[in-house]
Amino acid sequence: MQPDLSALATTLGADHDGYLLDADGTDSTQRYLSGFGAPDPFVTCYTPDGVHLLVSGLEYGRAKKEARAATVSRLSAYDYRDRVGELGRETGRGVVVADFLADHGVESVLVPGRFPLGTADGLREAGVTVEVDEADAVAEIRAVKTPEEIDHVRRAQRANERAMAAAESLLESATVVEGVLHHDGDALTSEAVRREIELTLLEEGCALDETIVACGADAADPHDRGSGPLRADEPIVIDIFPRDTETRYHADMTRTFLKGEPSATLREWFDLTDEARRAALDAVEPGVTGATVHDAVCDVYEDAGLPTLRSDPDAETGFIHSTGHGVGLDVHELPRIAPDGAELEPRNVITIEPGLYDPDVGGVRIEDLVVVTEDGYENLTEYPVELVV
Amino acid sequence: MQPDLSALATTLGADHDGYLLDADGTDSTQRYLSGFGAPDPFVTCYTPDGVHLLVSGLEYGRAKKEARAATVSRLSAYDYRDRVGELGRETGRGVVVADFLADHGVESVLVPGRFPLGTADGLREAGVTVEVDEADAVAEIRAVKTPEEIDHVRRAQRANERAMAAAESLLESATVVEGVLHHDGDALTSEAVRREIELTLLEEGCALDETIVACGADAADPHDRGSGPLRADEPIVIDIFPRDTETRYHADMTRTFLKGEPSATLREWFDLTDEARRAALDAVEPGVTGATVHDAVCDVYEDAGLPTLRSDPDAETGFIHSTGHGVGLDVHELPRIAPDGAELEPRNVITIEPGLYDPDVGGVRIEDLVVVTEDGYENLTEYPVELVV
Repeated sequence: MQPDLSALATTLGADHDGYLLDADGTDSTQRYLSGFGAPDPFVTCYTPDGVHLLVSGLEYGRAKKEARAATVSRLSAYDYRDRVGELGRETGRGVVVADFLADHGVESVLVPGRFPLGTADGLREAGVTVEVDEADAVAEIRAVKTPEEIDHVRRAQRANERAMAAAESLLESATVVEGVLHHDGDALTSEAVRREIELTLLEEGCALDETIVACGADAADPHDRGSGPLRADEPIVIDIFPRDTETRYHADMTRTFLKGEPSATLREWFDLTDEARRAALDAVEPGVTGATVHDAVCDVYEDAGLPTLRSDPDAETGFIHSTGHGVGLDVHELPRIAPDGAELEPRNVITIEPGLYDPDVGGVRIEDLVVVTEDGYENLTEYPVELVV
Repeated sequence: MQPDLSALATTLGADHDGYLLDADGTDSTQRYLSGFGAPDPFVTCYTPDGVHLLVSGLEYGRAKKEARAATVSRLSAYDYRDRVGELGRETGRGVVVADFLADHGVESVLVPGRFPLGTADGLREAGVTVEVDEADAVAEIRAVKTPEEIDHVRRAQRANERAMAAAESLLESATVVEGVLHHDGDALTSEAVRREIELTLLEEGCALDETIVACGADAADPHDRGSGPLRADEPIVIDIFPRDTETRYHADMTRTFLKGEPSATLREWFDLTDEARRAALDAVEPGVTGATVHDAVCDVYEDAGLPTLRSDPDAETGFIHSTGHGVGLDVHELPRIAPDGAELEPRNVITIEPGLYDPDVGGVRIEDLVVVTEDGYENLTEYPVELVV
């Protein structure tokens, strides 16, 4: 199923003839518009007539076969090598792209904010109008998934759950020696749990992006990956966001586990965070903004007397991040479930991930992955929410 | 050991006060200059006084601890959220970065060619001079490694060799049934060999970037990853380029294997390619250009009557790529061992990878990874060159 790009024609309007990308295949917007991936940057121009690619000779054959493109051209057809030799790498590229655009009747383009300045300056020198698309139209289109894309995310999430189960089972079967988790006679470390997750994901056909297995004070920093021996009676945050290597779509899920006895504060934090998760989920439906869903989480925490970035923009403990984000070709994409989050639409795929952090207590985060439906949401996450293993 | 950034001060000269980056931690230039990685874009400005970072509140604590920076500032200190709300995401970011630069006395910056246009336009509107550095000064600096960086590459290459050995051993122990390699009763596929490589690399602490295991006609396309059952009497190109997850440095190596009997043509191609490899290595020393090393490979192939891109720029069979490239934080970086390759310097880390391709014959490629020394090179590759397994 092809993505519906008609909104892009509307975005172009009367002022622009094309939507231009110059990026390699790791750029998800490039992959989405072109249906193609290559290790080196290549050029894609969307016009209402179709999508046109400009690639190196090395990629030409594969691009003809694989890309969702009306036409594929080669850099050598525009004397790329000579012009880069004469004008320099950046300006030369700009001039070549300008000629390619002229061949498709394009004189004025919109580009994403992260379009490369070198190419843009070269294009402008060659008389092409280049304007940044502040609205990031392709990101908006990507935020609404086709049923096929939702299936891709679902498949990645099944793999994710197997990896989470493998990790939980390691914690569960661990023994505690002097406050430290042990497995097969050795201290069980963040690194060992991460390895188990990675091996499981590999078996499931998923790539190994970063994984968080963070215990105690490490877990109090939402971006700390965690390291060293895992300790009993402390929260262990496990956040896994695999990418299916075939489809390139992601999943995302977090659970917090504890071996031993949680303190009264930790137990309260866990229960509050689960309550916040459920409050946010209850708010999810088309037409509701990401901001409103985020507010549902802040309400729960603030009612319990805990700080949030809403109550104190400089807060360094408490709920110090957004509630969630879209998931697809990128693990972080639109829509935002945050103070500036716009209205949700059916077939948005989003995370709901409230959490609390304090170096003196540790961290607690619970994250589900859901798809917005016509009248609410479907939770793609099939994994229990239990603190103590 | 810190990289030597003094050449950057020279590049700035009298016309520019700073070298500016706006990229996330997957961008190697960003990681190199800042000594920091984050999942979302952040700003690094090199000035002759030191390196200054501008990051989100979420990354602030970690950046203070980990970055190679004289100062770290927070977006919130510049009212980022309000200004993006008012001016839009791109222009708002540009205005905030302009204020950050002003605080460091910076009015004119050089940026890499792939610097984001949105930020650049915002900066220019705010009166900051933004010019593309056509010479890509940081890439030039990155091309000369410190001894510590060379050790990182060496370590990744040891892991690479273990992965190659695991793959070769699978081929060696395979049986041949009706022309197809079998293992444990099943057809042995590209995918299965790739999985074995990935598992080995994972055990070695390396990340799983793409890997090529391409047989027969697949192998005739240098960028085809390969798929399906492996066949006897056909060449199998295995190209592995792992990244050490701790240091983020890469290795790169290719070998071509064959189970069964090579045709006379294949045997000739393999021997020629090994001769081309040795000819290129013989040419490697400081002061010699990448172009000269590349010519050494073309000479061998053309003397044998085979097409190269030097003899025919439109060639689709024969030697249809460059001889090599630098390897470091990126798997493809400077210097180029290609028609436009500049003079080699001591402590360049480069690949030498001649190859021949024809859909009717298959592909042959042999790739070593070497470091340029004061008087020649050291081959970092400790792996035999043998066609038949």
